[in-house]
Amino acid sequence: VSEAGAALSWPDLAGRIVAGEGGRRHLLPIRVYYEDTDFSGFVYHASYLRFIERGRSDFLRLAGVHHRELLAGTGGTKPCAFVVRRMSLDFLKPARIDELLEVETRVDTITQATFELRQTVRRDATVVFAATVQVVLVSLDGRPQRLPGSVRDAITAG
Amino acid sequence: VSEAGAALSWPDLAGRIVAGEGGRRHLLPIRVYYEDTDFSGFVYHASYLRFIERGRSDFLRLAGVHHRELLAGTGGTKPCAFVVRRMSLDFLKPARIDELLEVETRVDTITQATFELRQTVRRDATVVFAATVQVVLVSLDGRPQRLPGSVRDAITAG
Amino acid sequence: VSEAGAALSWPDLAGRIVAGEGGRRHLLPIRVYYEDTDFSGFVYHASYLRFIERGRSDFLRLAGVHHRELLAGTGGTKPCAFVVRRMSLDFLKPARIDELLEVETRVDTITQATFELRQTVRRDATVVFAATVQVVLVSLDGRPQRLPGSVRDAITAG
Amino acid sequence: VSEAGAALSWPDLAGRIVAGEGGRRHLLPIRVYYEDTDFSGFVYHASYLRFIERGRSDFLRLAGVHHRELLAGTGGTKPCAFVVRRMSLDFLKPARIDELLEVETRVDTITQATFELRQTVRRDATVVFAATVQVVLVSLDGRPQRLPGSVRDAITAG
Repeated sequence: VSEAGAALSWPDLAGRIVAGEGGRRHLLPIRVYYEDTDFSGFVYHASYLRFIERGRSDFLRLAGVHHRELLAGTGGTKPCAFVVRRMSLDFLKPARIDELLEVETRVDTITQATFELRQTVRRDATVVFAATVQVVLVSLDGRPQRLPGSVRDAITAG
Repeated sequence: VSEAGAALSWPDLAGRIVAGEGGRRHLLPIRVYYEDTDFSGFVYHASYLRFIERGRSDFLRLAGVHHRELLAGTGGTKPCAFVVRRMSLDFLKPARIDELLEVETRVDTITQATFELRQTVRRDATVVFAATVQVVLVSLDGRPQRLPGSVRDAITAG
Repeated sequence: VSEAGAALSWPDLAGRIVAGEGGRRHLLPIRVYYEDTDFSGFVYHASYLRFIERGRSDFLRLAGVHHRELLAGTGGTKPCAFVVRRMSLDFLKPARIDELLEVETRVDTITQATFELRQTVRRDATVVFAATVQVVLVSLDGRPQRLPGSVRDAITAG
Repeated sequence: VSEAGAALSWPDLAGRIVAGEGGRRHLLPIRVYYEDTDFSGFVYHASYLRFIERGRSDFLRLAGVHHRELLAGTGGTKPCAFVVRRMSLDFLKPARIDELLEVETRVDTITQATFELRQTVRRDATVVFAATVQVVLVSLDGRPQRLPGSVRDAITAG
C-alpha cells in the first residue's frame, strides 16, 4: 500500500515503457552526479554500466519482473538472479556533471535461457554510449536456468 | 532549450523542495539497484553517502546553484567546488534491493564559509539512515571560500 | 592450497598488523585510481568509506575472521555479517589520482555486541581523513548478535 | 622521496610486469571486498571494469606513464587523459567476497592514436572475466591525441 502511495508521488521513478515507430522500448532519465564522474572531468566509464543496469532493472520492474521475488524463489523456480554474460560497449562521447541523460533499453533477441538487449545512453539527440548486453538467469550455485514463461512474456510483452 | 524540454518530460527528476509544518526541505526518491547492495543482501553502507549527495546536489540544483558553474568560476568567484568537511552518520535499519527510499535534506545552520545539513533516508515512515553534514566551498587548490551571496540566498531561500 | 600460494606471491595484499609505541594497529596501502576521484579532481568523499572498509576487512582477515564463514554460519553462530552502526568522519585534506595512501585501523573499545574502531587515512605523515566507526554483528534478519569469543579474541589479540 | 619510501614498504602495490613464454604482461592482485559484491552474493558485474582499470593504470605506472602528468600537460602535450573507446566483455564465472583474483593485462595492438589491450581476471587457473579494451588519449575538450613517443615506448617496451 505505501509502495503504491510512493509510486503515486513519484510517477516516473522507474521510467516509462513506450511503443511506437521504433518498437517497444524503455526510457529512464539519469542525472549525472559527483559519484558518476572522475578526475578527467568526464563521466567515469564504468558508470555507464550502472546506468544501463538501472535501465534493465526498471524495464523489468515495469514489465512485472522483480529481483527480490526471483531471489526468494517465488513463482515456482529455484532462487535465482539475472547476471550479465556478455557485453559490447561503445563509448562515443564524453558526458559531464549535472547533465541529464536518458537510457533506452530494447529487447533484441530471446532464447530459452538468455535474452539480449540493445541499450543506449543519450544526451538529447546525441548517443554518448551504446551497448549490446546478453543476460542469463542463474541459480545461486551459478547454473543457467530456463527463463520462466512469466518472465519471457513480461520481457517480450508476449 | 533541450534541457528545459527534458525537464518537462521528467518533472520530478531532481525531487521537490517542499515547505510546511516541518520547515523548508528537499525530498528526493531513490530506488535501490544492484549497484547499491552488497553480498550481505542489504544496502552497502557507503551507498547512503551517494544517496544523500544526490539529495544535496538536487536541492542546490532546484535552488539554482549548479556545480559546473561553480567549477567554471562564473558568478565572479574563483573556480570552486563544494566539499564535505565533516559527517556524523547513523545506520538505523537495513534496506534492500528494489526498495523505494526517500532522501530528505534540510539546512540546519549557515556561516560565512560553511553550511550544515540534516539529511535522512526513509522507507515510508521508517528512518533507515540519518546524517549531519558540514559542507565547505573550496577553490581548486583546496582553500575554503566565502559563500557567494547568491549561494547563501539560494540555500536559505533568502 | 592455491590461496596459500597466491598469498605467498603477494605477501602484503592484506596489509600488516604492527605493534609498537602506539599500540597494535593494522596498516593497508591504498592507491588512488580513476574510480576513486570525481570531477573536482579530488578523491570523491564516499571513496574514503570504501578505503576504510578494506582496512577493516583486512584487519579482520589477518586476525583470522572471515566474512564468508560468518555468512555461512560456520563457528556455531547463525549466519551473520558485520554492519556499520555509526560513523563520525572528518575530511581533512584533499587527495588526488595516483597518490599512495595508507589506512590505519585501531580497536578503540569492544562490548558484548559491538566494537569501535579508530581509522585514519594518511598520505605520508599527513592525515587526510579520520573516522570513528562502530561495528555490529547482525544476523540476516537484521538482529544484533553477541560477538563470538573467537571474534572477540581475534579483534583484541586475546 | 616519501613516495619512494612508501614504494619500498609496499613493493608489489602496483603489481608486476613479467615477461616469459606468453610475452610481456602485467599482473595485479585484487581482493574482493564488500564494495565489489551485490545482493546476489556474487561480484557486481561493473566491478570488473574497476578491477581492469586498476590493472591498466598500474601497468602504465610501472611502465612510467602517469595520469597526473598527462593531465598537467607535462611532456609537451596538451593536458589529456586516457579514455576507453570500446570494450568487449565476457563474464565467465561468478566470484565472491574475500576471494583473491588476479588481473592480467597485455598489449594487443597499438596505432597512432589508440592501443588495444587484452585483459583477464583469474581466480587461480580459472578465468572468471575476459575483456578486449580499446583506449584513446584525448585532450580535455574530448579530441583524440596522437600518442606521444614516450607513451608508445612505455606501452610497447620500446
